[in-house]
Amino acid sequence: MNHGTALLWKRRALSSLSATRRGLPKEKMSENGMVSRAKVLTIDTMNPTVKKVEYAVRGPIVQRAVELERELSEGMKKPFAEVIKANIGDAHAMGQQPITFFRQVLALCSYPELLNDSTFPEDAKSRAHRILQSCGGNSMGSYSASQGIDSVRQDVARYIERRDGGVHCDPDDIYLTTGASDGIVTMLKLLMCGEGAARTGVMISIPQYPLYSAALAELGAVQINYYLNEEKCWSMDISELQRALDEARQYCNPRALCIINPGNPTGQVQSRECIEDVIRFAAKERLFLMADEVYQDNVYADGCQFHSFKKVLFEMGPEYSNTVELASFHSTSKCYMGECGFRGGYMEIINMDDDVKAQLTKLVSVRLCPPVPGQALMDLVVNPPQPGEPSYDNFIKERTATLSTLAEKAKLTEQVLNTVQGISCNPVQGAMYSFPRITIPEKAIKEAMDIGQQPDMFYCMKMLEETGICLVPGSGFGQKDGTYHFRMTILPPTDKLQILLNKVKEFHQKFTHQYS
Amino acid sequence: MNHGTALLWKRRALSSLSATRRGLPKEKMSENGMVSRAKVLTIDTMNPTVKKVEYAVRGPIVQRAVELERELSEGMKKPFAEVIKANIGDAHAMGQQPITFFRQVLALCSYPELLNDSTFPEDAKSRAHRILQSCGGNSMGSYSASQGIDSVRQDVARYIERRDGGVHCDPDDIYLTTGASDGIVTMLKLLMCGEGAARTGVMISIPQYPLYSAALAELGAVQINYYLNEEKCWSMDISELQRALDEARQYCNPRALCIINPGNPTGQVQSRECIEDVIRFAAKERLFLMADEVYQDNVYADGCQFHSFKKVLFEMGPEYSNTVELASFHSTSKCYMGECGFRGGYMEIINMDDDVKAQLTKLVSVRLCPPVPGQALMDLVVNPPQPGEPSYDNFIKERTATLSTLAEKAKLTEQVLNTVQGISCNPVQGAMYSFPRITIPEKAIKEAMDIGQQPDMFYCMKMLEETGICLVPGSGFGQKDGTYHFRMTILPPTDKLQILLNKVKEFHQKFTHQYS
Repeated sequence: MNHGTALLWKRRALSSLSATRRGLPKEKMSENGMVSRAKVLTIDTMNPTVKKVEYAVRGPIVQRAVELERELSEGMKKPFAEVIKANIGDAHAMGQQPITFFRQVLALCSYPELLNDSTFPEDAKSRAHRILQSCGGNSMGSYSASQGIDSVRQDVARYIERRDGGVHCDPDDIYLTTGASDGIVTMLKLLMCGEGAARTGVMISIPQYPLYSAALAELGAVQINYYLNEEKCWSMDISELQRALDEARQYCNPRALCIINPGNPTGQVQSRECIEDVIRFAAKERLFLMADEVYQDNVYADGCQFHSFKKVLFEMGPEYSNTVELASFHSTSKCYMGECGFRGGYMEIINMDDDVKAQLTKLVSVRLCPPVPGQALMDLVVNPPQPGEPSYDNFIKERTATLSTLAEKAKLTEQVLNTVQGISCNPVQGAMYSFPRITIPEKAIKEAMDIGQQPDMFYCMKMLEETGICLVPGSGFGQKDGTYHFRMTILPPTDKLQILLNKVKEFHQKFTHQYS
Repeated sequence: MNHGTALLWKRRALSSLSATRRGLPKEKMSENGMVSRAKVLTIDTMNPTVKKVEYAVRGPIVQRAVELERELSEGMKKPFAEVIKANIGDAHAMGQQPITFFRQVLALCSYPELLNDSTFPEDAKSRAHRILQSCGGNSMGSYSASQGIDSVRQDVARYIERRDGGVHCDPDDIYLTTGASDGIVTMLKLLMCGEGAARTGVMISIPQYPLYSAALAELGAVQINYYLNEEKCWSMDISELQRALDEARQYCNPRALCIINPGNPTGQVQSRECIEDVIRFAAKERLFLMADEVYQDNVYADGCQFHSFKKVLFEMGPEYSNTVELASFHSTSKCYMGECGFRGGYMEIINMDDDVKAQLTKLVSVRLCPPVPGQALMDLVVNPPQPGEPSYDNFIKERTATLSTLAEKAKLTEQVLNTVQGISCNPVQGAMYSFPRITIPEKAIKEAMDIGQQPDMFYCMKMLEETGICLVPGSGFGQKDGTYHFRMTILPPTDKLQILLNKVKEFHQKFTHQYS
């Protein structure tokens, strides 16, 4: 899927070929009589699965964006004054403000002397006190239990119960993680087994978030692509799941099905019916379900609602709720808080075999524990100020402001992009991205192919060079052959987003004109 | 090596055998007519390499310690009033206080409103200001570059140059990590390659820190054991390295040599001569060097000094400094700061092939970035208050107090343990552990074997049940056949350590008497 990216990495590798002294004998005398040894670790002798890993969200286009930023700062003249990184869901970097209460508690936990400071609200102090009480030596500097701090896992369990209308949640099924990525990779790791045609296959949506393809490549698993239905607002289609599965069964052992809901990069919110169908499919086909639900608070479109896989599973009755194995992932990085840098997250595992769970607990213990500040933050997300507490009103005000601004920006993005001939954009129902389809003229496609780039990489690179806007080409996420897209976050402040959208519009018109 | 541990895990697995419904057909009707499906993921169908992973520092003995704590808190009567966890280098959990300056800066970074608070010293504010300036949107909630924040990597490079007497360090060779463990696993991952007799082998010391054996098991690499010389204070012996290497070459492809200095669990500090010998050996045998130097400030014994592998390498001249590939690891978790929970760390890579480095950068980008609070903390460790700054005197006072107390406790531990007949303890020259050798009577060995436990696990379990002291058996780290040890941290406060050592003494005498 990511030919353009792969070629860029390869070119980079080839350009420094001379430095690697490939094919040299083990030792040779250089001119000055010095022994020159061949490297132990070269591109030819390194881990082959690592070489297969690709991660478009931070790939060559982002590296070029960083270079451009440096060139700008060094005074080099460009057709733009700043680089706008709309490539990654990094809310604070785009100017979103942290939730005051969360940061007050983190400051109190970092420097408990502040518990004596009367300017901090009492509810922030009591949360900090509770977190510190759960830390060894009352310090965030202690290791926590590998599964995460007990009291935080209890708070997570109560949060899930509230979210899911009372469906029971056992804190022992909660594992705190270093962001959601950590949990996802850990679960995939457990599922790896078999060789050749018995090798573990994992179903992922196309388009997908490239953590999945990267992790599967690194683990040596088979990636099974099922396509989302762009014509029906990126919904899931059971017949497509069946097609993908049946084909894959001929060459691997499909064991898991990954769903991202709300969708990344596609921004859709799956309906309750669709989730039921997926659960029935997983039960029938014996697939372990992995539900990436990190955007669970990011739902904007009228009539759309977030349904957790857990809740739907339990509402389907014991035939499903007692049997279907499910892991659900959440994070501090998205929703209204956008605290990516703290690397907080959790996973809930349901119906996992007891022996496997013991192995999971053992496995996570090797890395000691997730970062404690991230655990503390996760605790605040699942246990925010309550009505009657001093910080409640301000918390609600801040959260509502962020979420309603995001809803506005989701609408704005869809509207503006759909005014452009050659761009068509599904509604951004949720998450933080639009993933519009773009028409690329034949002449541009040919020129891209001639230089070994995917056409949408060619398009995005040109846009970056001409406008300073950094997007990620659709080929980095996967897309139906012959279609082209880009992913753009809706995170820039509204006025900047308006400018950005207009620039995209102008660029697209110019590009189309140039190559027609 | 870890038979006792392995057996305990296995027993746990067997005890829940009924729950896993192994060997059942895919679906069967239960009595109430409900479909009961076999699990997708069972102990038989999970990742086999994960099953091989063992991690003694958080293994069954620690789980039992946690159970005992709960039983105590529920009012159950025990022969002790509290569980003392001397199993892990978790300084703050043992009562060590954080460095005030570090925590002030972290609080300022967490809640920048505090920059207006006049009670915070100016140097803390200027550090916080500099860190925030390097964060997207001036927030620790933003993702950083995957390799780590630029300015932090610059500070790390300058720290290394100061430490190593001016040897050049390029910030581009620094990768910030999620604790040292993360860096070590990443480097090992890059080195994996080949199958069968061409499979990557990695040399690790015995005794070792079990992160290494766990990571190698998970990656499917061959673990090559070289023994430290207990009779010569756990020093390294080139002839032993050669023996281990020559034997291993018959069944794998040895590619890397790992050294922990100062030593964990053994507490030795390697001499400059020894390090030179090791470098020469690595050069001759074409091995990638991995130097785990997380205890670089923890050196207590007279005449001992920390020598970084990098410095020695560069002092050996270009024949070595231009060719030998080295990765060195550091962390915020140990030394005088002991900030384990923040999961901060860095690695420096030297003479790495450019292509491999590009692959490394790509690989770390999949996990987005190390936790930013941990990066901030790493920055403070490498750039602490300077003479003339307002926080300097207090910083020096706190650091000196911690390190000199540790030095005292290192001496105390060695002294007391060596008064016990049947315990013999090398000097704790550095790090945070003693690893004394214990004599276990034949009768106890037999009893342990009869219940499928390693004799030192049997010994430590008995000690835990009778005294509440949680140590890690030597078999969890590896030891010469027929010898037995335990690892004990020197971290408890001096008065508590004194009590603990006396309890160990009494227990050992009683145990020896009981089984003689």
